[in-house]
Amino acid sequence: MSGIYKKVEIVGLSEISFAEAVKVAVEEAGKTVRHMSWFEVVEQRGRIHDGKVAEFQVTIRIGFKLER
Amino acid sequence: MSGIYKKVEIVGLSEISFAEAVKVAVEEAGKTVRHMSWFEVVEQRGRIHDGKVAEFQVTIRIGFKLER
Amino acid sequence: MSGIYKKVEIVGLSEISFAEAVKVAVEEAGKTVRHMSWFEVVEQRGRIHDGKVAEFQVTIRIGFKLER
Amino acid sequence: MSGIYKKVEIVGLSEISFAEAVKVAVEEAGKTVRHMSWFEVVEQRGRIHDGKVAEFQVTIRIGFKLER
Amino acid sequence: MSGIYKKVEIVGLSEISFAEAVKVAVEEAGKTVRHMSWFEVVEQRGRIHDGKVAEFQVTIRIGFKLER
Amino acid sequence: MSGIYKKVEIVGLSEISFAEAVKVAVEEAGKTVRHMSWFEVVEQRGRIHDGKVAEFQVTIRIGFKLER
Amino acid sequence: MSGIYKKVEIVGLSEISFAEAVKVAVEEAGKTVRHMSWFEVVEQRGRIHDGKVAEFQVTIRIGFKLER
Amino acid sequence: MSGIYKKVEIVGLSEISFAEAVKVAVEEAGKTVRHMSWFEVVEQRGRIHDGKVAEFQVTIRIGFKLER
Amino acid sequence: MSGIYKKVEIVGLSEISFAEAVKVAVEEAGKTVRHMSWFEVVEQRGRIHDGKVAEFQVTIRIGFKLER
Amino acid sequence: MSGIYKKVEIVGLSEISFAEAVKVAVEEAGKTVRHMSWFEVVEQRGRIHDGKVAEFQVTIRIGFKLER
Amino acid sequence: MSGIYKKVEIVGLSEISFAEAVKVAVEEAGKTVRHMSWFEVVEQRGRIHDGKVAEFQVTIRIGFKLER
Amino acid sequence: MSGIYKKVEIVGLSEISFAEAVKVAVEEAGKTVRHMSWFEVVEQRGRIHDGKVAEFQVTIRIGFKLER
Repeated sequence: MSGIYKKVEIVGLSEISFAEAVKVAVEEAGKTVRHMSWFEVVEQRGRIHDGKVAEFQVTIRIGFKLER
Repeated sequence: MSGIYKKVEIVGLSEISFAEAVKVAVEEAGKTVRHMSWFEVVEQRGRIHDGKVAEFQVTIRIGFKLER
Repeated sequence: MSGIYKKVEIVGLSEISFAEAVKVAVEEAGKTVRHMSWFEVVEQRGRIHDGKVAEFQVTIRIGFKLER
Repeated sequence: MSGIYKKVEIVGLSEISFAEAVKVAVEEAGKTVRHMSWFEVVEQRGRIHDGKVAEFQVTIRIGFKLER
Repeated sequence: MSGIYKKVEIVGLSEISFAEAVKVAVEEAGKTVRHMSWFEVVEQRGRIHDGKVAEFQVTIRIGFKLER
Repeated sequence: MSGIYKKVEIVGLSEISFAEAVKVAVEEAGKTVRHMSWFEVVEQRGRIHDGKVAEFQVTIRIGFKLER
Repeated sequence: MSGIYKKVEIVGLSEISFAEAVKVAVEEAGKTVRHMSWFEVVEQRGRIHDGKVAEFQVTIRIGFKLER
Repeated sequence: MSGIYKKVEIVGLSEISFAEAVKVAVEEAGKTVRHMSWFEVVEQRGRIHDGKVAEFQVTIRIGFKLER
Repeated sequence: MSGIYKKVEIVGLSEISFAEAVKVAVEEAGKTVRHMSWFEVVEQRGRIHDGKVAEFQVTIRIGFKLER
Repeated sequence: MSGIYKKVEIVGLSEISFAEAVKVAVEEAGKTVRHMSWFEVVEQRGRIHDGKVAEFQVTIRIGFKLER
Repeated sequence: MSGIYKKVEIVGLSEISFAEAVKVAVEEAGKTVRHMSWFEVVEQRGRIHDGKVAEFQVTIRIGFKLER
Repeated sequence: MSGIYKKVEIVGLSEISFAEAVKVAVEEAGKTVRHMSWFEVVEQRGRIHDGKVAEFQVTIRIGFKLER
């Protein structure tokens, strides 16, 4: 009930799909951020190489509870 | 040619991907809504649990023809 | 370093997922556009038929280097 | 002074103009919704056939007082 | 985990504050909608009379679980 | 080449169409504002009475050259 | 039915709440503007001093009927 | 099912109304673009001359199927 | 005059009002962030429980001077 | 602490840069507006002549304290 | 008075400033596009190298008259 | 290919231009942030003093690779 949350903006990359890129972003962020609670998709882009999609890039905002 | 359409806003959930969450939203909505014609993605979010993506949440607007 | 880029807006279709629709859009566009470098997702929609998702539609902007 | 309002999202169609499409949407909606009070234009699109505008499509939000 | 949510758009009114207008919207909506879970503020407006604020008007989207 | 422009925000009303409401706004504004040069449509709404559109309301920004 | 409205953009300040800041903006504006009819909240910000909220700042657009 | 669509951004002009300006844009574009399928209104502006609306300007995006 | 500012995104919670939720966010953030100067409201949401507003949630961006 | 602010929307022109266009807008506006305090960039456009940028046009909102 | 305009989206690059990047985009585009009339700034980004701004990137939409 | 990026939001100040304010933001941020890769302009504002632009303020989001 009390306490506050912070949001950080992270970009995840994947060669497979946007959903994979979100998972990568969350799992990598989890190595330094604790108490992660939700994410919001902010932007979806990608890199093209040799006429094919080479990389899906998703920017998400991750919300987590601030410890005191 | 005549007739009008209505849009309703539905949130679908999936543990797998955004595309799955859209399918869930459409198929569940179809149990009470008839003549569904198209959808528009409005928002993509998700829940995080134990440092991993636990749920993809997609808000879509579903357009359907109003019967008279 | 010098030179400019142009963006074109393309809609890709897929029965499977948004990621597939992006791949279709990029690969088809690549048949006439050269030096494609990146894409940005602009809109995600779809068609519903018989109460199920029949088609994922993704509008992307593709950036490519203009040749001189 | 008391009471609340609800908004529903309706798409009206017309071969003539956006204003006509709005009128169609409001009049058709009025067959099932009572106490309609105002509308807001959300989106203006249309269908093209044989190189000509075949249909104006207007999405409006209609606000109406909820009866108790 | 399974199941879907629906969002409806409601306008609440109050002579006192935006927070009161939100409470009015939620409590009135609760008379016909069950399983309400969250709200999102969409628009804040108001009516002026005799040079003073006569009414705070808040449009919220209310999310609730669809029963099956 | 020199000089600056100012924009003012005006709401025009019409029983007929959005285009008429724009004309009304511009012509009425022209009674006190000089050197009007362009307009931009900002919002399109309307009033409903007895189940019919009673009034088209268009908010426009009018740009005009400031005299010195 | 006839006549047009103008909107002006005003910033109100309050040490207490956003609702108070709106009231201040409307009441102060009313000293020079007549026939004020409605307001729309455009932006909510504030000043922080010594680690506490020192001032709520609300930008509103006030609509009023133009006299002829 | 197969194939992709492209969108181009066109500005149509009319002395009469926004609907006319859309028709002009579509019909002129049709002289060089084939397989046009739909349009989306992006912006509505206009030119003022001698205190009257001299020209309605509508920017639309036209979607058309790319031939192979 | 010199120096730069950083913005962080914080979510504050309150059972009473949006203004209280902003105060909570600022005061809690102030326990670890120094030289806070202003805030901007980004999003207003809330949790509903038993048909009543259980929690106001406000996302704000807090700007503070970076020390060197 | 007390008092309110008003915002006006001004377009400045420059052949050199956006920054110059902002300076022109502020300095010209200052000939009739007093107590100007801040500006916000709203839009950046320009005129092209003979294949070159002929004019940078910046729309800014200027905030100033209302005197009583 | 008659005729229509088309808009194309171009990204210009410069090591110096956003204004220079706009000039580059317009001048390069002018090598293949005729009758260019205006531009609108859509996005401002840049590349960072070794802790310094290495490149200003401006996306503009260029409007030009379509020849018949 | 692997790894994720983080974005932070920084405000840079300059008496000269927006481009200078971006450079200041990037160079100051580089004193504590490593592996900075790109920036995106989010907001352009400024302070006015004595009827002249006293300060250009640019908010940018800086993207940098997270080290592991």
